[in-house]
Amino acid sequence: MNKNKYTIYGINNCITFLSNKKKYTILKIFINQNSSAFKNEKIKSLLNNHKDKISYLDNKLFNKKFPFKHSQGIYVEFEGVIEKSIEELINDNINSCVIIVDQVKDPQNLGQILRTSECAGVDGIILPRHNSVHLTNVVLQVSQGAFIFSNICIENNIVNTIKFLQSNGYWIIGIENSIESKNWYEMDYKGKIGIVIGSEGKGIRKLVKESCDFLATIPMNGKINSLNVTAAISAILFERNRQLLVK
Amino acid sequence: MNKNKYTIYGINNCITFLSNKKKYTILKIFINQNSSAFKNEKIKSLLNNHKDKISYLDNKLFNKKFPFKHSQGIYVEFEGVIEKSIEELINDNINSCVIIVDQVKDPQNLGQILRTSECAGVDGIILPRHNSVHLTNVVLQVSQGAFIFSNICIENNIVNTIKFLQSNGYWIIGIENSIESKNWYEMDYKGKIGIVIGSEGKGIRKLVKESCDFLATIPMNGKINSLNVTAAISAILFERNRQLLVK
Repeated sequence: MNKNKYTIYGINNCITFLSNKKKYTILKIFINQNSSAFKNEKIKSLLNNHKDKISYLDNKLFNKKFPFKHSQGIYVEFEGVIEKSIEELINDNINSCVIIVDQVKDPQNLGQILRTSECAGVDGIILPRHNSVHLTNVVLQVSQGAFIFSNICIENNIVNTIKFLQSNGYWIIGIENSIESKNWYEMDYKGKIGIVIGSEGKGIRKLVKESCDFLATIPMNGKINSLNVTAAISAILFERNRQLLVK
Repeated sequence: MNKNKYTIYGINNCITFLSNKKKYTILKIFINQNSSAFKNEKIKSLLNNHKDKISYLDNKLFNKKFPFKHSQGIYVEFEGVIEKSIEELINDNINSCVIIVDQVKDPQNLGQILRTSECAGVDGIILPRHNSVHLTNVVLQVSQGAFIFSNICIENNIVNTIKFLQSNGYWIIGIENSIESKNWYEMDYKGKIGIVIGSEGKGIRKLVKESCDFLATIPMNGKINSLNVTAAISAILFERNRQLLVK
């Protein structure tokens, strides 16, 4: 697992990061002197510990250097290891839940998956090494700070990863429209489970699908029949939360 | 309601549009002669009816004119009225459901809301005239063709719109974290209902909230505590679909 350089921006994102940066090293913080970030009291107090890292720029220079629509006048560069190992992901919680995201390509989608998963209380997210977007700056930005609290691991072989999870007591549910699939709410999401979701166009790969213990699908009621992967994840994870709360 | 000019691009988006364009007038279709759209059989057959509107461009010219990453070599300009009136939205379906999106600003979010709502079988979407994103080209693009099959209306005064819905037998549920809010799955989504969801940062406006018959919330299990509005809509709409399927 590599130590990488990353950047994030925006007031809420940077507040979450600066309040919880534990394992990361801040390299530089850029502040626009004519921005809402400059005047933000919470940001001001969080910056007290990093005075040597801050560059204050005027409006023109900041916007030239960081032409991001939603920067709100703050831009943080940091370094660290976000990834974890699969051993760190699994745990003995009676209702542990990990998500396996099989070859999603769009950083917006992965960022939203991290965000929704964190809000829904998921224990970890597994991505394949190949043909998948990983932890890019766009993913971190879209995740709205979720990456800080998420256990994310990147695995070479998802079929082996599923076997590893199964040998540790996890049941694996693939979200895929197939003849054998049950309706999503007919699944039992209690206990230790892994949820596999496929890529934007292609769904779950054949061998990965065959490794799943169960398949579940979300029937559509409209005409376009193309639910976004992040919307599907949200429907599944909150159905899980419903089951955990109700029973 | 104005007749406006719009554009969409991308193979799937344009196939959905060209197959179902009923109420729209195609102005121009641009095709990149070195693209997957040019070779697509489905596109080819759909273009047969519009030969006088098509311009074939070489790769360089097309990409200069339409520098969109996901254009896939097809770009359609059309004209028409997408909006409907509130009277067209409501109906006598025993389980009619409309969504009221209170002042969402981000076109990505609105596009995803249209897409998820169409997939979930919602009957209509209501947007406020002021302080809200409306039907921009980005919204149409992100909706992946959902706008074609959706009943979308823009209203001046959402409180009055809620009263109108209530007088037509709709119960109004606001999605808002408040002391009076029930858990989202404790709501009864059967029958004629309107679901109100607020803007990205601020939630539902006070007077709109006070007009709701019920409030529901989705408790978070993580630390960032910021579920995206589109993820929230998905959780709610598929809980509704679960209730309709189960009982």
